[in-house]
Amino acid sequence: MTTPTSPAADPVGSDPAYVAAVVDLLGVVSYGEVSAFERLADDTKLAPTLRDKLALATMASVELGKVGALHARIEALGADPFEAMAPFQEVFEAFHHHTAPADWTEGLVKAYVGDGLADDFYREIAAFLDPETRDLVVASLDEDDGRVGFLVGRVREEIAADPPLGGRLALWGRRLMGEALIQAQRVAADRDSLTALLTGGVDRPGLDLAALGTMFTRLTERHAARMAELGLDS
Amino acid sequence: MTTPTSPAADPVGSDPAYVAAVVDLLGVVSYGEVSAFERLADDTKLAPTLRDKLALATMASVELGKVGALHARIEALGADPFEAMAPFQEVFEAFHHHTAPADWTEGLVKAYVGDGLADDFYREIAAFLDPETRDLVVASLDEDDGRVGFLVGRVREEIAADPPLGGRLALWGRRLMGEALIQAQRVAADRDSLTALLTGGVDRPGLDLAALGTMFTRLTERHAARMAELGLDS
Repeated sequence: MTTPTSPAADPVGSDPAYVAAVVDLLGVVSYGEVSAFERLADDTKLAPTLRDKLALATMASVELGKVGALHARIEALGADPFEAMAPFQEVFEAFHHHTAPADWTEGLVKAYVGDGLADDFYREIAAFLDPETRDLVVASLDEDDGRVGFLVGRVREEIAADPPLGGRLALWGRRLMGEALIQAQRVAADRDSLTALLTGGVDRPGLDLAALGTMFTRLTERHAARMAELGLDS
Repeated sequence: MTTPTSPAADPVGSDPAYVAAVVDLLGVVSYGEVSAFERLADDTKLAPTLRDKLALATMASVELGKVGALHARIEALGADPFEAMAPFQEVFEAFHHHTAPADWTEGLVKAYVGDGLADDFYREIAAFLDPETRDLVVASLDEDDGRVGFLVGRVREEIAADPPLGGRLALWGRRLMGEALIQAQRVAADRDSLTALLTGGVDRPGLDLAALGTMFTRLTERHAARMAELGLDS
């Protein structure tokens, strides 16, 4: 927990470029949660049993439940949460449009691999944030082991029952990764403030090209580890 | 709050017919919440703004959040929540299939009028339950004023902007009521245990035909009051 500070004493408030970047970041993370809700809620239609449906619906609700605190922080920074989210709507919709699951197992893999990738990326960015915003972003990550246990367990069950499915889901995982990179690239190109968060500023350390490369390698390795957890090649 | 009782001391446990009826009732209420989640989550696609979308998504999550306590009570009564819900899946799906909103305002009216009707019915039934189950059923009702304020406010805004809409929505409200009665009739015909809850048993008071009629009148009056709240004829 952070101690309460008056707005004037908030170190964040002293740098308008930083504030703009943080508002952007909180906008993208919170829209990501709204979007995850929509997609998971939609994928409940693919659930083969009522139990699976309820498990996925509960995940959707958990994602949505994180939005309130993120919006409160955006407001505390003097910005409007809906304006902050608006620039990212198209990117998320494009991602989901290009990665609509054809069936239940594709939906499960997407929930595990896609959200895992987003979380890894937010965790990397969190290192460059003020403590209060960092705590908030880290709290919005999916650390729930029950969730991961359910997703991994169900995917493995489905593959065990139908081994050729493994080949199809491995390709699906590659496609999710590819689409995520395409959309992340779009955000980086459109939102200078966000890229500046990573590359630093006059009085703020950032990443050089080598460090950005290392970060990218870490993200790829964690993606491969998740695919392996599902019993899939990456 | 009820005081903890051992299973043997639970008065509910002494009457197998009553337990079967309560499990049925908790099954129908909890499946109703899952179904409300699905429908509200689906209707977020019709939302004209991101703010409207988030408001509806939040309502969906609130409905789903009530399922856990209802399922815990079903388990405490020695039954399986998913088996308890299963018999009612078809009825809810038929209701939603026949009342799929054509647009955003129909979705809002359905959320207000449909859930209000269901809540009124559960409140009537709650009077015939043991205190612990009654508290649980009453807690699952939508007493949130913010929710009602949003729904009523948005429908009134839309009608103000397009007065002929009022005529269409009035017909829509009648259709919702008609479909709800058709499906309630199906449940009453299929589930003797539930009707026995209302009509009573050897050592349990119930409603005679006149009292059932009065109850029906109350439900109709409350529906009319909700329609009037929206500025619509019923």
